[in-house]
Amino acid sequence: MADAHAVAFAPGHVTVFFGPHRRDDPERSGSTGAGITLTDGVTVRVGPGEGVSLNGSAVTIAAVERVLERFTPLRVEAETPLPIGAGFGVSGACALGTAFGANAVTGAGRTENDLIAIAHRADVEAATGLGDVVAQARGGIPLRLEPGAPPHGVLDGIPGAGRIEYRSFGAMDTAAVLAGDADRLREAAERGMERVLDRPALPVLFAAGRRFSEETDLGSSRTRSAIEAVRTGGGEAAMAMLGETVIALGSGLSEAGIDASACRVHPTGAGLRPPEP
Amino acid sequence: MADAHAVAFAPGHVTVFFGPHRRDDPERSGSTGAGITLTDGVTVRVGPGEGVSLNGSAVTIAAVERVLERFTPLRVEAETPLPIGAGFGVSGACALGTAFGANAVTGAGRTENDLIAIAHRADVEAATGLGDVVAQARGGIPLRLEPGAPPHGVLDGIPGAGRIEYRSFGAMDTAAVLAGDADRLREAAERGMERVLDRPALPVLFAAGRRFSEETDLGSSRTRSAIEAVRTGGGEAAMAMLGETVIALGSGLSEAGIDASACRVHPTGAGLRPPEP
Repeated sequence: MADAHAVAFAPGHVTVFFGPHRRDDPERSGSTGAGITLTDGVTVRVGPGEGVSLNGSAVTIAAVERVLERFTPLRVEAETPLPIGAGFGVSGACALGTAFGANAVTGAGRTENDLIAIAHRADVEAATGLGDVVAQARGGIPLRLEPGAPPHGVLDGIPGAGRIEYRSFGAMDTAAVLAGDADRLREAAERGMERVLDRPALPVLFAAGRRFSEETDLGSSRTRSAIEAVRTGGGEAAMAMLGETVIALGSGLSEAGIDASACRVHPTGAGLRPPEP
Repeated sequence: MADAHAVAFAPGHVTVFFGPHRRDDPERSGSTGAGITLTDGVTVRVGPGEGVSLNGSAVTIAAVERVLERFTPLRVEAETPLPIGAGFGVSGACALGTAFGANAVTGAGRTENDLIAIAHRADVEAATGLGDVVAQARGGIPLRLEPGAPPHGVLDGIPGAGRIEYRSFGAMDTAAVLAGDADRLREAAERGMERVLDRPALPVLFAAGRRFSEETDLGSSRTRSAIEAVRTGGGEAAMAMLGETVIALGSGLSEAGIDASACRVHPTGAGLRPPEP
């Protein structure tokens, strides 16, 4: 039952609005909010050995270390086209892919909910994410109605599919924002969730995201002007929480003359890749 | 926001063991148990007009009619390579695909959990399924820990992927079985769930399924002899509940000389197909 190597994939995830909820138990901690999972994600190869690499370079990823502590030392090779530290949940995706891969390689016998809880706990304890892991495990356009890992967190989703563009102008200091006024974030996120539940559709999600970044003053001049350019062209755009990153529906960024990467809403949650034939 | 046509896909789902739980509220009714979702599923095209077709022939599917009552009359065209009435959850897949498609076409503004609950209720009320819809909405190898639609039902999953073969020898009268000794089914399903949760892996699931069909005496001579042939060749096979159908891991059936269809574990839950470019 234990394979020498295993390959897992976790989609990227941009949060559009969020309210942090910190509790003593990391598995009950997390965030409410909404986001979009992306076909651009992280492929994680797990096998015998030690050390973690990201796109071929040796790295330390705190959430991955914490996941491996629950299994055994293993070699983890992560590959992604996504920008790092720019609001795509790369840390959570690495943690989730490592959990699925390590479970397969060691024959540890965990269920999917167990693996999601292990990765969520690791991302929360490493202070690199609060809601990415559960969203990435689900796929689609996740609504995080209640924070936390299974069985605590409650998810729903906006039915939808389609092309998403993204452009990152740089990283943002997640820890500093999360150390800020959490009440203000939670209140703005609640208003965002009301709007989206009233009419669960992608354009409404983008509008709720714009309102959230205005109300919480989290945008930069570059994200604001890129969003404005997409809006002027009749498109939908919003900022990714937390990065100096803008996402747009369809071809909104490229049609506004802004250089952007393109992918799609990811239909699938994270999981093992079938063994190569 | 409302499109003229929408296309949705729901994977096939074979239940390997199950315990029926009937309550007054259809959304709290359902089954516990375990199964496998399949890349062979049902593609549902929804658009203006009336009438339901399955693989080009006009049909009446009670669960689809019940879903449409929650929206508006629409034309529903379902296509599937799966055998009908043989334990693949075609009825639930049609209901789920219709719910996603009708929501997109009418702009009804339902969340994914709403759509799953609508399809689950329809399948339960039509007496054509108790656990297929929630499993098909999730994808993968679903464990139904608690019965019912969201937010009542609780799901987990066995991490896994790979090739699945199936061979159907005929339909089975679901209603007659479900009218039988439900306590016996529930008790056998509880023992199956204990085994699978103790070691969540595909071979254990197949073994638990064989034990379940023996304990509940639901097999036929043809399913028993096909399973025996696969086991003799060193493979894993079990019966699909409820059909005169055998599923096998990898190439178990074809290697035993039994003509079979092949597909894979479906990684994705049901959802809208992206609009064609």
